[in-house]
Amino acid sequence: MKAIIISIGDELLIGQTVNTNASWIAQEINKIGIQICEVITVADSKKHIIDTIKRARQDADIILITGGLGPTNDDVTKNALCKYFKSKLILNKTILKDVKNFFEKRNRILTEKNKTQALVPHNCIPIRNSLGTAPGMWFETSPLIPLRKERGGKQIFVSLPGVPFEMKAMVKDFVIPQLKRRFRLPIIIHKNILTSGIGESFLADKIKSWEDELPTNINLAYLPSLGMVKLRLTIEGNDRQKLNKEINLQIIKLKKLIAEYIFGYDDETLETVIGNILKKKKTTVATAESCTGGSIAHLLTSVAGSSAYYKGSVIAYNNDIKISVLKIRLKTIEQFGAVSEQTCKEMLQGILKKFQTDYAIAVTGIAGPGGGTKDKPVGTVWIGVGSEKKFITKKYLFPFSRMQNIEQTTVTALNLLRKILK
Amino acid sequence: MKAIIISIGDELLIGQTVNTNASWIAQEINKIGIQICEVITVADSKKHIIDTIKRARQDADIILITGGLGPTNDDVTKNALCKYFKSKLILNKTILKDVKNFFEKRNRILTEKNKTQALVPHNCIPIRNSLGTAPGMWFETSPLIPLRKERGGKQIFVSLPGVPFEMKAMVKDFVIPQLKRRFRLPIIIHKNILTSGIGESFLADKIKSWEDELPTNINLAYLPSLGMVKLRLTIEGNDRQKLNKEINLQIIKLKKLIAEYIFGYDDETLETVIGNILKKKKTTVATAESCTGGSIAHLLTSVAGSSAYYKGSVIAYNNDIKISVLKIRLKTIEQFGAVSEQTCKEMLQGILKKFQTDYAIAVTGIAGPGGGTKDKPVGTVWIGVGSEKKFITKKYLFPFSRMQNIEQTTVTALNLLRKILK
Repeated sequence: MKAIIISIGDELLIGQTVNTNASWIAQEINKIGIQICEVITVADSKKHIIDTIKRARQDADIILITGGLGPTNDDVTKNALCKYFKSKLILNKTILKDVKNFFEKRNRILTEKNKTQALVPHNCIPIRNSLGTAPGMWFETSPLIPLRKERGGKQIFVSLPGVPFEMKAMVKDFVIPQLKRRFRLPIIIHKNILTSGIGESFLADKIKSWEDELPTNINLAYLPSLGMVKLRLTIEGNDRQKLNKEINLQIIKLKKLIAEYIFGYDDETLETVIGNILKKKKTTVATAESCTGGSIAHLLTSVAGSSAYYKGSVIAYNNDIKISVLKIRLKTIEQFGAVSEQTCKEMLQGILKKFQTDYAIAVTGIAGPGGGTKDKPVGTVWIGVGSEKKFITKKYLFPFSRMQNIEQTTVTALNLLRKILK
Repeated sequence: MKAIIISIGDELLIGQTVNTNASWIAQEINKIGIQICEVITVADSKKHIIDTIKRARQDADIILITGGLGPTNDDVTKNALCKYFKSKLILNKTILKDVKNFFEKRNRILTEKNKTQALVPHNCIPIRNSLGTAPGMWFETSPLIPLRKERGGKQIFVSLPGVPFEMKAMVKDFVIPQLKRRFRLPIIIHKNILTSGIGESFLADKIKSWEDELPTNINLAYLPSLGMVKLRLTIEGNDRQKLNKEINLQIIKLKKLIAEYIFGYDDETLETVIGNILKKKKTTVATAESCTGGSIAHLLTSVAGSSAYYKGSVIAYNNDIKISVLKIRLKTIEQFGAVSEQTCKEMLQGILKKFQTDYAIAVTGIAGPGGGTKDKPVGTVWIGVGSEKKFITKKYLFPFSRMQNIEQTTVTALNLLRKILK
């Protein structure tokens, strides 16, 4: 089963908007066992849109179109589809009601222009838009829309708005369930194993024997990002129970090899995993940041409900603050420097005492691009993590640019906290 | 002059990688007056690549190809190009030297596989890769590569690696200068006017008269993001001096209408603009954050050299910390609540005193999704900005999700600081 995505919009071709819609759709469609064989981005031009649909029909069973459905004159997708499928526009009462409700709820006046959103081609199934005003359109081969001779089976054409959250809701609530009903799709199960604290090539070495012995129906992908590597296992077949059993067996085997690096599964993140542990333990944490400048706090507080365990931070960007607020001894900074194990340790002790938390993270380093010396080059970072009774301090040397060094330090510090909490 | 971008890579079609290369190239190519009429993303498949080049040749003068140039077996772009252009692979000594140097510098061993990177098609101009090992390839119509009958002028085919920083360096250092030499391109000048503190539609109202009278050779685009709107003016012609004069005249007119909202131009950001003002004034700033959880600090310290003016922050996520560290009176919180003008004011005074800075920002609010009440719904934020002598406190109600409320608060707070510094 093959699909082509057609992304419509001038803003995509001048590079003003990155085509995140296409990659999101590709991921979702892939999960149900449909392969995307091409993504084509074209302008808001009727002729170009029709030519592209014609061409795509020769290679794919499913054509997924996004963009160009707004009420303004530069949006021409609906017109192009009407022309190609020889449709008449008819007023759809359900959609009109949806559009009216949308404006009423927001206390906005419904213009004649907005009402035209409820005009839909007579030979399509309209897709309701719960988050906006432009309905989607589902066309499929029928006596009205003849099948291309080149292809044997049914063909589906779906047109969706370009606004990401509107499009996403329609794909999840309508398109995916309908595709599952229309086609006999294989069952595909993905499992993500999230690791931190080990680089991609070292990880590959550690799991080589396991990877070599993976059954051929299981596919492994390495997805690295700063400070972490996601391992994605994919299995395809017809018996969900059997597939789950097979893939879980492999995860058990994998765990034996790299348990210490695994911090979570699937949609978890370091910050949600840490949040859950802290909540369960009813313990609290605070941070003392220097070179990361609030990045650790920002990530921890990105989790809704983090106020239950996160008390706050002192960002001591300046040495005066390290001394006056965190109570680092002047002597320590003079003797060992602000970026040193001793300073890091005193920062950790200082924040634990000041914020009266069970755990804390302290970080001091040189993010760059300036500030490096021969002994302490850019990327030198000391991280301290723990409680008053049990803590560790570790030195790192990161090779990246300023923002990447900050991000890598943030992830590394959170992973150390996770380990000490376990 | 028309161009098509062909993006090659399985990772793009399964949605694992977002095609940021295409939008970056589109922006750069647009700047020199070449229009991108289509972006086509295809798999690492020789047949698919060749078919796509054939098709693209019918519509474009320039075909820009990225991806599939690595040394591993799944990268097939070079082979596909050799087949299509009937090329023989020959060893290029300059490229071989580059590859050798690359490995020597990194103390890595050069394998036979890596050496094959120096094999390039005999009928192309190799493009040296200063940041990686895979050279780019520049083919152009010649007796060896005949022109398509359908198109009159010269045709250019450029193949570049998919690694973003390698590709970008090659586009800037080689592709753009060469395209400028090969084609008579118009001069295009872009000017960005950066505004904050006013929504897109209000801004449009304010500048309507100016916009209506814009000369037809000047194009205006609104580029909104959270908390700011970028206005991009584009002018095209042949006389750079004249164009600059014309566009600057329009900016002077625009400034008269919206001076208070403009915070910078072109590549500036709120945080760099603020940094420059603070450095110039030799003044310092600190922050006291509650609901933003370090986001303001993170943005301020994203600027290299920010330690010259930014002393640090107290993130008082918990009310205990507001009282014990920032010295908010318990009575204030009990009487008015943590999210109130009074608390915000005391946070501002507290941080100014504790961190001994000239200026400070204090923020307290409800980011959501939980924590809202009828009187203080999710999105309620108090921002205080200023010095001991002169400060303001302002209330906002943002309608977004948690992370967007945090971002909007961050930008709004920084813009208030900018205004007070002026």
